[in-house]
Amino acid sequence: MLNVYLSGEIHTDWREQIIAGAQGLDVTFNSPVTDHAASDDCGVAILGEEPNKYWHDHKGAMVNAIRTRKGIEDADVVVVRFGEKYKQWNAAFDAGFAAALGKSLIILQQPDHDHALKEVDAAALAVTREPREVVEILRYVLTGKLPG
Amino acid sequence: MLNVYLSGEIHTDWREQIIAGAQGLDVTFNSPVTDHAASDDCGVAILGEEPNKYWHDHKGAMVNAIRTRKGIEDADVVVVRFGEKYKQWNAAFDAGFAAALGKSLIILQQPDHDHALKEVDAAALAVTREPREVVEILRYVLTGKLPG
Amino acid sequence: MLNVYLSGEIHTDWREQIIAGAQGLDVTFNSPVTDHAASDDCGVAILGEEPNKYWHDHKGAMVNAIRTRKGIEDADVVVVRFGEKYKQWNAAFDAGFAAALGKSLIILQQPDHDHALKEVDAAALAVTREPREVVEILRYVLTGKLPG
Amino acid sequence: MLNVYLSGEIHTDWREQIIAGAQGLDVTFNSPVTDHAASDDCGVAILGEEPNKYWHDHKGAMVNAIRTRKGIEDADVVVVRFGEKYKQWNAAFDAGFAAALGKSLIILQQPDHDHALKEVDAAALAVTREPREVVEILRYVLTGKLPG
Amino acid sequence: MLNVYLSGEIHTDWREQIIAGAQGLDVTFNSPVTDHAASDDCGVAILGEEPNKYWHDHKGAMVNAIRTRKGIEDADVVVVRFGEKYKQWNAAFDAGFAAALGKSLIILQQPDHDHALKEVDAAALAVTREPREVVEILRYVLTGKLPG
Amino acid sequence: MLNVYLSGEIHTDWREQIIAGAQGLDVTFNSPVTDHAASDDCGVAILGEEPNKYWHDHKGAMVNAIRTRKGIEDADVVVVRFGEKYKQWNAAFDAGFAAALGKSLIILQQPDHDHALKEVDAAALAVTREPREVVEILRYVLTGKLPG
Amino acid sequence: MLNVYLSGEIHTDWREQIIAGAQGLDVTFNSPVTDHAASDDCGVAILGEEPNKYWHDHKGAMVNAIRTRKGIEDADVVVVRFGEKYKQWNAAFDAGFAAALGKSLIILQQPDHDHALKEVDAAALAVTREPREVVEILRYVLTGKLPG
Amino acid sequence: MLNVYLSGEIHTDWREQIIAGAQGLDVTFNSPVTDHAASDDCGVAILGEEPNKYWHDHKGAMVNAIRTRKGIEDADVVVVRFGEKYKQWNAAFDAGFAAALGKSLIILQQPDHDHALKEVDAAALAVTREPREVVEILRYVLTGKLPG
Repeated sequence: MLNVYLSGEIHTDWREQIIAGAQGLDVTFNSPVTDHAASDDCGVAILGEEPNKYWHDHKGAMVNAIRTRKGIEDADVVVVRFGEKYKQWNAAFDAGFAAALGKSLIILQQPDHDHALKEVDAAALAVTREPREVVEILRYVLTGKLPG
Repeated sequence: MLNVYLSGEIHTDWREQIIAGAQGLDVTFNSPVTDHAASDDCGVAILGEEPNKYWHDHKGAMVNAIRTRKGIEDADVVVVRFGEKYKQWNAAFDAGFAAALGKSLIILQQPDHDHALKEVDAAALAVTREPREVVEILRYVLTGKLPG
Repeated sequence: MLNVYLSGEIHTDWREQIIAGAQGLDVTFNSPVTDHAASDDCGVAILGEEPNKYWHDHKGAMVNAIRTRKGIEDADVVVVRFGEKYKQWNAAFDAGFAAALGKSLIILQQPDHDHALKEVDAAALAVTREPREVVEILRYVLTGKLPG
Repeated sequence: MLNVYLSGEIHTDWREQIIAGAQGLDVTFNSPVTDHAASDDCGVAILGEEPNKYWHDHKGAMVNAIRTRKGIEDADVVVVRFGEKYKQWNAAFDAGFAAALGKSLIILQQPDHDHALKEVDAAALAVTREPREVVEILRYVLTGKLPG
Repeated sequence: MLNVYLSGEIHTDWREQIIAGAQGLDVTFNSPVTDHAASDDCGVAILGEEPNKYWHDHKGAMVNAIRTRKGIEDADVVVVRFGEKYKQWNAAFDAGFAAALGKSLIILQQPDHDHALKEVDAAALAVTREPREVVEILRYVLTGKLPG
Repeated sequence: MLNVYLSGEIHTDWREQIIAGAQGLDVTFNSPVTDHAASDDCGVAILGEEPNKYWHDHKGAMVNAIRTRKGIEDADVVVVRFGEKYKQWNAAFDAGFAAALGKSLIILQQPDHDHALKEVDAAALAVTREPREVVEILRYVLTGKLPG
Repeated sequence: MLNVYLSGEIHTDWREQIIAGAQGLDVTFNSPVTDHAASDDCGVAILGEEPNKYWHDHKGAMVNAIRTRKGIEDADVVVVRFGEKYKQWNAAFDAGFAAALGKSLIILQQPDHDHALKEVDAAALAVTREPREVVEILRYVLTGKLPG
Repeated sequence: MLNVYLSGEIHTDWREQIIAGAQGLDVTFNSPVTDHAASDDCGVAILGEEPNKYWHDHKGAMVNAIRTRKGIEDADVVVVRFGEKYKQWNAAFDAGFAAALGKSLIILQQPDHDHALKEVDAAALAVTREPREVVEILRYVLTGKLPG
């Protein structure tokens, strides 16, 4: 059985594609909360308002860390998706965190980010371009079967 | 004695400001290679050309990792600077790597990045705006003296 | 699934409130022995009387440590409740122990203790005022759902 | 050589007594910042004012953690002093943190706190009543010589 | 659930007493091979005869280590029984091994061995005289119930 | 229950012999992908062709590492088989990796390799000549029963 | 440079023989307090009398543990000497403690103890009969020179 | 300062070339005993003859392990050289051992071994062909200077 954490971009359906593609495989998936508004506001929604936006964000990031740290620490494989937009520093942070814990890292990104991601990619066991490739790796790792 | 690793942006003189400001303190500083061209090309310059840019970058990133991993692993404090430009995913990766190793993390960034860096900041013991503040923290940690 | 250890104050029903509130969530709760008399006397009750109160206490604290260490080491999340009365040094000790093991720490305390608990709070991912807030965090971490 | 961290109460001269008594022994001592005002205000003095007292305290506690964590992590022996007054939860937190890291723990406290400190004492290798006893332990550990 | 490893003396029925006494508790017990002849000869019986008694013993001790190391590493609690006879250095070795791994240690021995076992006892959370006391500790740790 | 990883030679049926022999024992077996062609080509088959054979091999070795690292890290016992042919450096690498993680190591090799494998054997708890001996060790470790 | 801890028997001059024989080598030696009376009484001499011999011993063993744990944790090589007399359970405990920490273990014992020490010897990298052999190992490890 | 362990082939002067080339750099080099005869016979030369060649080899490999384990554990960088001849399983074992400890690994080999070494190379940060390239990496890592 493989425990896989799906970190990074939350604006496309790459997680759903991987989970659907991996049906029938002995995999458990975990991921951060992908509801953007909930993720941004969880701190103040539960622990009380903050007039200062910095502390508003801080309280939320801390609460989310309870979930993301457990997700990464329990994982055998951490997949980190970098999308086309935004800074996505939390994705790179998760990759570094996972690398330091010795997790098997799979990066999912487009070639135009290759240069900017070279240090992240250098810590990975696979750099993929499509969710389908992640699924094919999981299938091969679990069953020894290659695509086609 | 404090061993401090200075990670991140290489286009301004923030490292020099911190090192100059910390003169007289019992601190050892380390940092990645900050010569951009050397850092990009070190892999092929030593280990041979690659026609494919991806592997060109990969070989360089691996060689640089020898230095950056030792720098972070030996450090008591890891300062990560996020500048105004570029993706800077290697900086966020270093922050995640340092956080997973339990290092004391100090972030140096401007307020306009607060929201994008909220997960990184949440793992830090201090979020600073100016190199001077990093120096003041190091002085306080080592001597107990506050500025002014 | 989340393994949660409930450390600290044993004179109010905060544990029962959290456990009741978390019904239906995929959480396992553990806690120290909360029967005050049993907890104080377990050492001598099992291992024989001690004329000296110090060793009486010592034998009991050692036996209780078998349970509390396992509880903390197995936990994903450690909630530490500081009540209004007593020194509660064992609660702060548990918080430090959990922090050093890298556990996600949630503190439950009233604002009048904020200053005295500032070092403990600084190691936590959330500082809560009511058992209900702990439940809301657990629900959000497990399901992504916010209250209200 | 023994590296000793002196944690806890900052209102009496127990640290000075131990350091003076240990003169001539191969010991290095470290401790938190013991200037109460500086310790309380270091966060805002360096990183900017906070209107909310909670965040004022939080920023300071985080900065102090840079020093205290290094002090405990580098130590062979952690001495934790509990005084007569205040909650001193940071002292108990340090004791728990040190215990989880497997440090040799020496507690310095008066007998009237024995019951309240029984869990802390149970994690220690020695419970002392006077700074002189701490010095005698350090001398014995380093030289094999007993007092008198 | 508690995983308990029963190390040490193999000539009396102390393991059976503990296992019988703990019926109904959520405990899993493991132990070394307690068939003395099989334990002594397992190496040569499987891997081939050795003319030299030293290597005969060595091969057996190595094969037994596969079982004993797993038993100790998987355990929450390690009970080490010292009997009246023999050197029992393997029991003390197991106690040291378990202590270094941070396991909760319970020693089972008669008072006439107190002085000789003082370093071993000092690493334990309980020193018991009868198998019944071990059972009572396990029951208390799991259920909070004291005997009588 | 024992988790056993079967590393090394993929050209004879030693794994099948062990698995068949161990039927009825409480053992879980894992192993690398033993389909030689799939193992060699998995990288490019999933992640795209490489004109350079070195990177072809590299991509495959990285993908296989996801499976082999998990296999070794999850194992209680790592069996490493050295066959008669080829360099088999990956087998020796796995043995070193397993040894550094403190796994119980069983080597399966013919006597003509004894001298060349002496450093590997020195890290093992058993050196076997036949798959049957591995089965006998597993049976003894789990049940205490010797052959014959 | 090699840091060597000399554990075990305190009634013969084996430590002096090793230290004298190793003169000129780049070795640092540490050992427990070998003054039998001081070692037995250090707890009560510093921390106050105990009417009960068990606690008298306990306090002493705890204080001695400050020295012995540091000695073993700092060591590259732990030499454990078993003499002809006494139970010497502390020696076997130290051997187990060192083995669990992955220290290189050298045992020094006479052949009549081979069978009783087989589990301890199985965790060692060398079993020696004379202090001279320990010195020869240290010289070989540091300089590559063999005796004679 | 960089601590570098030079593992592997002992029949050519690659170590001397690296050490000479690195003169002036802040590097400390360690290596196994490279006197083949001494390395093979150290066990019996010190600990007594063995009629059985297997145990002769075993005793030697164990004594050598005292040096090689310390060399690898203390290293920042482990260079493993695979020569043209012999099985060199100890080299691959060292590479696996170093990889599991998270050491920066540099492999030194000729291209005809690329396929056989693909799993080893996949764990390395650089694969070099000449001792000169190892020197250039060390110089770059320490000074940021590239060759030429």
